[in-house]
Amino acid sequence: MNYSMLRYLFGVVLLIEAAFLALPLVVSVIYWESSGICFLITMAVAGILGFLLTRWKPARRDMYAREGFVFTSVAWIVISLIGAVPFTLSGQIPSYLDAVFETVSGFTTTGASILTDVEALDNGMLFWRSFTHWLGGMGILVFMLALVNMGGQANHLLRAESPGPTVSKMVPNMRKSTAILYGIYIAMTVLEVILLCLGGMPLFDSLCTSFGTAGTGGFGIKNASMGAYPSYYLQGVVSVFMVLFGINFNVYFFILMKKYAMAWRNSEVRVYLAIIAASTLVITVNILNLFPSVLDALHHAFFAVASIITTTGFSTADFDLWPQLSRLILVMLMVVGACAGSTGGGVKVSRMVILYRVLSSELHKLLHPRSVKVLTLDGKAVSRETIQGIQSYMTLYFLIAVGSMLLVSLDNHDFVTTVTSVVATLNNIGPGLSLVGPTGNFSIFSAPAKIVLALDMLFGRLELFPMLILLMPSTWRKN
Amino acid sequence: MNYSMLRYLFGVVLLIEAAFLALPLVVSVIYWESSGICFLITMAVAGILGFLLTRWKPARRDMYAREGFVFTSVAWIVISLIGAVPFTLSGQIPSYLDAVFETVSGFTTTGASILTDVEALDNGMLFWRSFTHWLGGMGILVFMLALVNMGGQANHLLRAESPGPTVSKMVPNMRKSTAILYGIYIAMTVLEVILLCLGGMPLFDSLCTSFGTAGTGGFGIKNASMGAYPSYYLQGVVSVFMVLFGINFNVYFFILMKKYAMAWRNSEVRVYLAIIAASTLVITVNILNLFPSVLDALHHAFFAVASIITTTGFSTADFDLWPQLSRLILVMLMVVGACAGSTGGGVKVSRMVILYRVLSSELHKLLHPRSVKVLTLDGKAVSRETIQGIQSYMTLYFLIAVGSMLLVSLDNHDFVTTVTSVVATLNNIGPGLSLVGPTGNFSIFSAPAKIVLALDMLFGRLELFPMLILLMPSTWRKN
Repeated sequence: MNYSMLRYLFGVVLLIEAAFLALPLVVSVIYWESSGICFLITMAVAGILGFLLTRWKPARRDMYAREGFVFTSVAWIVISLIGAVPFTLSGQIPSYLDAVFETVSGFTTTGASILTDVEALDNGMLFWRSFTHWLGGMGILVFMLALVNMGGQANHLLRAESPGPTVSKMVPNMRKSTAILYGIYIAMTVLEVILLCLGGMPLFDSLCTSFGTAGTGGFGIKNASMGAYPSYYLQGVVSVFMVLFGINFNVYFFILMKKYAMAWRNSEVRVYLAIIAASTLVITVNILNLFPSVLDALHHAFFAVASIITTTGFSTADFDLWPQLSRLILVMLMVVGACAGSTGGGVKVSRMVILYRVLSSELHKLLHPRSVKVLTLDGKAVSRETIQGIQSYMTLYFLIAVGSMLLVSLDNHDFVTTVTSVVATLNNIGPGLSLVGPTGNFSIFSAPAKIVLALDMLFGRLELFPMLILLMPSTWRKN
Repeated sequence: MNYSMLRYLFGVVLLIEAAFLALPLVVSVIYWESSGICFLITMAVAGILGFLLTRWKPARRDMYAREGFVFTSVAWIVISLIGAVPFTLSGQIPSYLDAVFETVSGFTTTGASILTDVEALDNGMLFWRSFTHWLGGMGILVFMLALVNMGGQANHLLRAESPGPTVSKMVPNMRKSTAILYGIYIAMTVLEVILLCLGGMPLFDSLCTSFGTAGTGGFGIKNASMGAYPSYYLQGVVSVFMVLFGINFNVYFFILMKKYAMAWRNSEVRVYLAIIAASTLVITVNILNLFPSVLDALHHAFFAVASIITTTGFSTADFDLWPQLSRLILVMLMVVGACAGSTGGGVKVSRMVILYRVLSSELHKLLHPRSVKVLTLDGKAVSRETIQGIQSYMTLYFLIAVGSMLLVSLDNHDFVTTVTSVVATLNNIGPGLSLVGPTGNFSIFSAPAKIVLALDMLFGRLELFPMLILLMPSTWRKN
């Protein structure tokens, strides 16, 4: 393990976080909130720590897969531990564990909250809370690029994750790829802010809401989430942007390059849109009698589907009260998740598509034993290694889900709460059903359960393997 | 498709069923029940149909994978449709759909019942109901042998199912293998009957209970299932035999051959026993305060674990009232299931073991990219094809589960009922949780839901692929 390199990198991460803490500080100053001092203190601590850690250049700069995984997981934990400080320091989230849960939920773009009254928070705190979503979403884009540049096994990991045209193929240079991705991300966020402001939403609310949408996070700044803005225009803008942020960013890259055919050929995106359309339709019919008109039902169904499949987690209606079919569809969408290469979580549509194709080729082989069929996606052959990676991913996914459910069940909440709290955190959604439904929150859990659920958010956000490798004893053995 | 051969084989199956219907007829005569006439009529119908279908020898005798799958699935449906006739004819299960559900549940050794008062049935009917379990369990053993002898793709299917020493390797001749398996099966059933009778259970009850245990079915002849026999000795005998019938029958074969080391080397069985021990221990601690003593808790925990992991479904206590951790463990055991090569259902322990090993070798490769590791089970290499088969099996398993849950959810029962009714039928358990828990039953479902759940039982029993191939349009296309 190249500890000096890791030390240096953690220092860099802390300096970056200190810089970003300046933004909520500015908000606090604008609103004359005394809690702004807490951001200043945290900035100082992060800044000094970061300065000390980066003072000496690392002895060697070489990083292998192991260091990469360890760095990624620990970095996410460190920024959450630091990011939680202002909440507790200001007394607005008195328990530090709760504050860490909230911050992990923010950075992992989950949106699960332990707050029973969001509106009691200062504006600076609300801004920081939503801003962690935006940073988290951004971080995931870099994380994926970093994986590409780690080469070797990381490439193998990434291919499992983003089996379409890989990010690395967009432009040969990582720095340039990052800049393009960030450009798209920032432009789309700005566009949403403008559209929301045009609909009459205050600028502060528009900013926070757009951060939550862009990161597919879902922290609301109102207790009623998006239900606090009854305008169908505002809710409509958010639902469309949720869908847009759940799309593989390569598609936007292709559109920028005017390669429209390439963009449309992306089968993951087409399946993703088809799932959204089909689910919206079925749920609309299923909830028809709960709403005054078909259009109302359609509006709320589309919002819920967009919010859940993109793993954002905003809500306009309490879908926990909808009929079983709708509730079940939503739980399944939680697992499916958004597209690979987006800020969304979940298993990802492309993995589902590949698993389905493997199954049909297996069935074909059963009936026509001598046939040879190469599995393809978007016209390219999918390697044996990629398939193997996805299948191991699924095994690990279920192992982690089952293990977490068993641990959370010790709290002895009802079955649906236990199961969906894990599904909602591991897939970075936010709300689940029953006690953790759109009107509930995660304050009901014991400290150990909160730790398990926070780890699940990290597992989900980092695509399982980095966190697992961090926790494996063999990673820490000298060889 | 070789229709004349299929026609002939269906005839044989009907003749065999007619012969077996003689047993409940004898029981009816002994108890002087007028409903016995219904068995006679059904025998006549099955006999005449069978006679007509077998009257002309098939033109060609060759069967390919496709015919094999179609034959297996249709045969199980046909025997259930015929086997349901006496129940409706006698008026004891007035709805024919309900009777078919009950018979499918019997033959597939599921044990899910639509009866609200089992004890209202005549003894002949109760006997036939339990006897279908025993025949179903026996049928599965032949089914597996048949797969071995179909060669080619079937072999490939079977290897996925029973990756230990395959049945075909026990003795070179299929007829002889069948005889040995049946011998073991019958001897174990007889032993259980004797032990139950020694404990004071009436012979009739002992027979029916042993049929339910041997087939890992779980139909009880009392409304309180095994709770109607409060003797810990009787309940203990049943729990031990449930565990024994859930073990890979190859192990018994090795024991018969005095190859004790070979028997013990079977890692599936060791994992199976370890899961039982661990689950029993955790549940015992979890339910301690619900019972007067540790021994009582241990007794009921062991019974529930044995009943669920072997997919039998007998009950001594209402585990639906146990704490969430215990309920969740039981639901997970439902999915795990028993050993391959036993009469039990579920995904099977060996599949889980292999999936776990694939995952660890994948993790090893992530950290040590240049290492080469061959996956082994019981000292033999597991082929790429076997692994692929298991992984496709899992994909299909989840697809069917999810699809069924969506359809069943249209009945709008609570979430846990919806989910566990599918889990309990697809894995051939019997009881689930909530409305389909140990004290509930499946009469609450609408006709369409009952059809879906009955199909799930068949899917689960025949290891998914045969039923799927039956329902695929391409199977019926001429080529």
